[in-house]
Amino acid sequence: MGNPAGTEPYGDGPAEPADLVDHHCHGVARGPLDEAGFLSYLTESDAPAADGTTFFDSQLGFAVRRWCPPLLGLPAHCAPAAYLARRAELGEEETGRRLLRATGITDYVVDTGLADGLTTPEELAAAGGGRAHEIVRLETLAERAAEKAGSSGEFLGGLQEAVHGAARAAVGFKSVAAYRHGLDFDPAPPGPGELGAAVDRLLAARDAGRRLHDPVLLRHLLWTAAGTALPLQIHTGFGDPDLRLHRSDPALLTDFIKAVRPTGCPLVLLHAYPYHRNAAYLAHVFPHVYADVGLTLSYTGASAAAVLAEVLELAPFGKVMFSTDAYGLPELYVAGSRLFTRALRQLTRTWVGEGAWPAADAPRIAALIGSGNARRLYGLPAAEASA
Amino acid sequence: MGNPAGTEPYGDGPAEPADLVDHHCHGVARGPLDEAGFLSYLTESDAPAADGTTFFDSQLGFAVRRWCPPLLGLPAHCAPAAYLARRAELGEEETGRRLLRATGITDYVVDTGLADGLTTPEELAAAGGGRAHEIVRLETLAERAAEKAGSSGEFLGGLQEAVHGAARAAVGFKSVAAYRHGLDFDPAPPGPGELGAAVDRLLAARDAGRRLHDPVLLRHLLWTAAGTALPLQIHTGFGDPDLRLHRSDPALLTDFIKAVRPTGCPLVLLHAYPYHRNAAYLAHVFPHVYADVGLTLSYTGASAAAVLAEVLELAPFGKVMFSTDAYGLPELYVAGSRLFTRALRQLTRTWVGEGAWPAADAPRIAALIGSGNARRLYGLPAAEASA
Amino acid sequence: MGNPAGTEPYGDGPAEPADLVDHHCHGVARGPLDEAGFLSYLTESDAPAADGTTFFDSQLGFAVRRWCPPLLGLPAHCAPAAYLARRAELGEEETGRRLLRATGITDYVVDTGLADGLTTPEELAAAGGGRAHEIVRLETLAERAAEKAGSSGEFLGGLQEAVHGAARAAVGFKSVAAYRHGLDFDPAPPGPGELGAAVDRLLAARDAGRRLHDPVLLRHLLWTAAGTALPLQIHTGFGDPDLRLHRSDPALLTDFIKAVRPTGCPLVLLHAYPYHRNAAYLAHVFPHVYADVGLTLSYTGASAAAVLAEVLELAPFGKVMFSTDAYGLPELYVAGSRLFTRALRQLTRTWVGEGAWPAADAPRIAALIGSGNARRLYGLPAAEASA
Repeated sequence: MGNPAGTEPYGDGPAEPADLVDHHCHGVARGPLDEAGFLSYLTESDAPAADGTTFFDSQLGFAVRRWCPPLLGLPAHCAPAAYLARRAELGEEETGRRLLRATGITDYVVDTGLADGLTTPEELAAAGGGRAHEIVRLETLAERAAEKAGSSGEFLGGLQEAVHGAARAAVGFKSVAAYRHGLDFDPAPPGPGELGAAVDRLLAARDAGRRLHDPVLLRHLLWTAAGTALPLQIHTGFGDPDLRLHRSDPALLTDFIKAVRPTGCPLVLLHAYPYHRNAAYLAHVFPHVYADVGLTLSYTGASAAAVLAEVLELAPFGKVMFSTDAYGLPELYVAGSRLFTRALRQLTRTWVGEGAWPAADAPRIAALIGSGNARRLYGLPAAEASA
Repeated sequence: MGNPAGTEPYGDGPAEPADLVDHHCHGVARGPLDEAGFLSYLTESDAPAADGTTFFDSQLGFAVRRWCPPLLGLPAHCAPAAYLARRAELGEEETGRRLLRATGITDYVVDTGLADGLTTPEELAAAGGGRAHEIVRLETLAERAAEKAGSSGEFLGGLQEAVHGAARAAVGFKSVAAYRHGLDFDPAPPGPGELGAAVDRLLAARDAGRRLHDPVLLRHLLWTAAGTALPLQIHTGFGDPDLRLHRSDPALLTDFIKAVRPTGCPLVLLHAYPYHRNAAYLAHVFPHVYADVGLTLSYTGASAAAVLAEVLELAPFGKVMFSTDAYGLPELYVAGSRLFTRALRQLTRTWVGEGAWPAADAPRIAALIGSGNARRLYGLPAAEASA
Repeated sequence: MGNPAGTEPYGDGPAEPADLVDHHCHGVARGPLDEAGFLSYLTESDAPAADGTTFFDSQLGFAVRRWCPPLLGLPAHCAPAAYLARRAELGEEETGRRLLRATGITDYVVDTGLADGLTTPEELAAAGGGRAHEIVRLETLAERAAEKAGSSGEFLGGLQEAVHGAARAAVGFKSVAAYRHGLDFDPAPPGPGELGAAVDRLLAARDAGRRLHDPVLLRHLLWTAAGTALPLQIHTGFGDPDLRLHRSDPALLTDFIKAVRPTGCPLVLLHAYPYHRNAAYLAHVFPHVYADVGLTLSYTGASAAAVLAEVLELAPFGKVMFSTDAYGLPELYVAGSRLFTRALRQLTRTWVGEGAWPAADAPRIAALIGSGNARRLYGLPAAEASA
C-alpha cells in the first residue's frame, strides 16, 4: 500500500508547481468528443469496457474526477455525466486551455508519431501557455520513407536523410519496437545483407499498408538514431493490447544498451511499468540510461506514490524524469502532473520527516525529477526563458 | 510497506461484511487433522518445514492465529498448541461450522477438481450457511474421459460430451495448465493431426497413472471450454512446487487471450502473485479478462493491503474478484475473507481520506469486488435470494 | 510507498541491535580512497556517474549521509565533501574501526572471492570487534585450480580436493553463475563427456586470462559444492552491469533446486531484487531454500521497509537472513545494518500495532532474521561465545 492513513497532509496549496517539463506527451484531440470518444482515451484498451463495467471505475478515472471538475467550475468527484456535459458546454478548445494551464507544465516535449486528429506541438504549447519541442518517432519516419522509395537504396538513403534532418529540429527520437516486435531483438546493428533483404521485403509489401514490424528494420532505426547522439526514447512496459507485456521488459534491452554505449547516445526507458524497477536498475548501472515515470503514475492513480517510490529505489535521482504521456484528453495532463507532484511531495515529506532524506536536498531532487534532468538531457532552456 | 503506523483504525466492528462471493475455493478436510495434517494445509510446500522452523511463523500462520482462536473461544494469537487442542476438542465439523459462519461468505464457488477427502460443495455450503456452485476442472474431466475411452474417437467424443454436460450445471471451468506444462503454450487450438497423436499417446500411457500434461491436450481442453462461453478460470502465478513460477506469468497468455477473444469466453486469471500487476494489466486491456485476488491475500497476510493496492493499480474495479482459494482448513476461509475485507477497507478509507477516491463511490466499488463482479460474471443470484 | 507519514517513531534509541550475523559480506578497501574511489563503491555501476549527476544523489547515498557522519563526529546529512574530508583526516583504519563497531554485527561471514585490495575476514572482524567466518567462491577456486592443472584429470581432481578442503574451514560456498552465464542453465550435473570437453576448452583458453563462464563448468561447481552439504549461496537478482537482470531471476533455478534437493544441500538465494518475491516463494515451497535481504536493503534505502515487507509476504520467517553485502566501504556495513534494523522494527511495530502480529512473537522473529536463522544454517556459535 502506498498511503498513510488519516487526513491528507499533501493538500493542494495555492502553489502548484510552476515548472514541469513533460518530456514525453502527445497532442490533444481536435474534434468534440462524445462519451464513447472520451472513454476511449481513458484506457489502454482497444475496446469498450466489458458489459456492466465502465472505465471511469479505475484509478485513472477517479484521478480525472478528482482534479478536473474544479478546473471547469464543478465540485471534485462530481458524476461523470455532469462533467461530460460541462465539458461539452465549454467546447474542446476552452476545456483544453483551462485544463492545460493548470498543470504547471512549461515545456511540452511531444511525440509526433501519432498525429491523426491531434493538435500539433505548437498548438498544444500555445493552449497550455508553454513551449513546444518535438520527439520524432522512428517507425513513422521509416514508413514515410518507404512510401516515397522506389528501391532499397532510395529507402535507406531517404531514411538516413530523414533521421539526420529530423535531428536538426527535434530534441530526440522514439522507438516503438516493443509494440512492433518486442524488446528481445538482436542487439547488433544489422549487416548490409540482412538489411537489404529486409528492405526488399518491406518495399514489396508496402502497398498492403502494413506497419513496419521487421526486427531487422527496427534495429536499423535504433542504430541510425543512435548515430545522431540525440536522446532516444524507447517504449518499455505496458501499453495497448498490441504488445506482449513480458516482451516489453526493459531488461531485455541489456545487450543493446551495452552495444550502443560507445556511441554516447542516451537511452530513455519510457513507462516501464510493471518493470519499472528493472528500468531503474538499468539507469543505475549504465551512465547513458534514464528512467521515465509517465503513463505509469497517471494510470496507477491513488497508488502513484508507491510506484514512484519503487522507481526511486535504485534509480539515481539525476536520472528520473517526469512526463504525462498524455494523449487525446487534456485531462490526462492534469492527472499526470497532479499525481506526479503530489506523489513526489508525499514521498519527500515522509522521508525528510523520518530523517532518511536531508531536508535541504529534497527540493533540489524534486526539481531535478520535475524538470532539471530533462532540461539537461534534452538541452532545453531554463523555465524563465519561456515566460 | 503496506501499513500505516499507530493504532489500528480498521477494527473489527460488529458488522463484518455479510455478502461475499468466494468465486474460487475448495472443500475442507473431512477427517480429524493432527498437527502435521493441519500444518500441511498451511503452506504451498509439499514437505514438512525445514528443521528449526515452523509454518506457523509466516504471514498466513499469524493471520490464522489472529482471527481463528476468538471464533473458538480462545484469545487471539494464543499459542498454536492451545489452538490445535481446542480444535480437536470441538471436532472438525463443529470447528468448520463456527469458522465458516464467521466469514460473511454467502456463495461458495467450488473447484471440485481436487476432491480426495474433502467436503462436497453442498456440504461446504451447508456448513457455512451459504449456497454452493461448481467450477469443473478440465484436466480432471479429461483424465476421467481417458479412463473410460477405448479409442481416440471415444476419448474426444466423451470429453466433448463431458465438458458440455458439465456446462449445464457448473458456473465455470478451471485449467491448471500452469502446473501441467506452463502458460507458454501455443495459443491456437490444436489441429486434428496433432490432437489425434496426442490422444493416442495419452491412451497408450494412461495405465501408468500419469497426469495429463501434454500441451496439445491442455490447449484442446481450453478451447473446448471456451466453446461453452462459461467463464474459464486459469491458474496463474504461485502455487505448489509442481510449477515453475516464471512459466506461470499470466502475460505468457497474451496470444491465447487474443485468440480466444472472438469466442466471448471470459477468462479469469487466478492468484497471479507475484505477477498480479501483469494480470491486472491484462484485465485492463482485454474486455474478456478478469483478475482474482485469492490465495494471494491469504498468504501475504499483514501485507495484503499493499498487494491488493497493486492489483488495483491497473485493473478496472469492475474486473477484480474476491476469493479465498481456501483448501482443506476452514481457517483459510476466515483468513482469506478477513484479510480481504480489512485490506479493502484500509485502502478505501485511506484513499477517500486523502481525497483520491470519491466517498460516495467507495462502498459501491467494495461491493463490486466482494461480490457484485462475480455475481455478474458467473450469473449468480443476488444475496437476498439465499437468505 | 513504504513509510507512514508524520514523525519518525523508529528512532535510534540507545540500544542499536547488539547481535547481527552478516551472513554475506566482503572486505573493506585497504588503501586511502579519494573521492572517485569512494564513489566507485557507492554504486553497482562500472563507470563514473553521468555528467551532471552524482551517486550521492541516490537512496544509498542519502543513507550513508544519514548514519555515517555522526559516527565520525559530524552532523547527519552534512555535505559529502565535509564527510570525505573528515574521513581522510581519520584515515581508513580509524574510519573503519569507528563505523564497523557501530553496526551491531557480531559475526562476519565473508565471501573471499573478490579479495584484491580488501581486508581479510580476520582483519575485518578484528576491526569490527566480531568474529570471522569464510564463504568460498566456487569460480575463484576453479580458476585457481585451472592455473595449476596440466590436464583435464588434474583439474578435476584438484578442484574436487580444493572444494572439499575448503569445506573443512569455510561455512559455505558461493556461486556467481548469474554473472558468468545466467541462471537459465541445465539443472542436471554434467555428464563426463561434456564435462571433459568443457575442461579441455578451459585449459586451452586459460592463458588468455578469461574468467570461467562455461555453463557446463558452472554446473559442475554447483554440484560439487552440493556434495559437501554446506550451505550454497547463489547470486540472484541485481548486481553490476556484467549480468543480464532477467537471466538472474531466481525462479529460473527451480529445476536445479528440485534436482539438488535430495543431496540435502541448503541453497541461499542472495539479494534477488527485483525478484525478491520470487526468492521468497522458493523459500516457501522448498525446505532447503533460504532468502537473503543483503544489498537490496542497502540500495533501496528509504524504501527498505517496503522491500523487506515484500520478502516477508511469502518467505517463512525462519528462512530469511540479514546481510549487508558490504564491499569496500565500512559505510556500507553501517547503512546495511541500520536500514535492516529500522525497517524490521518499523514493520513489526506496525503489524503488532494493528493486531496482525502477536506482540510476544515479534522480538523472536526479529532475532531469527537478524541472526538466529544464520546461526542455525551455518552452524555458528551463539553471540555470547564471541564476547
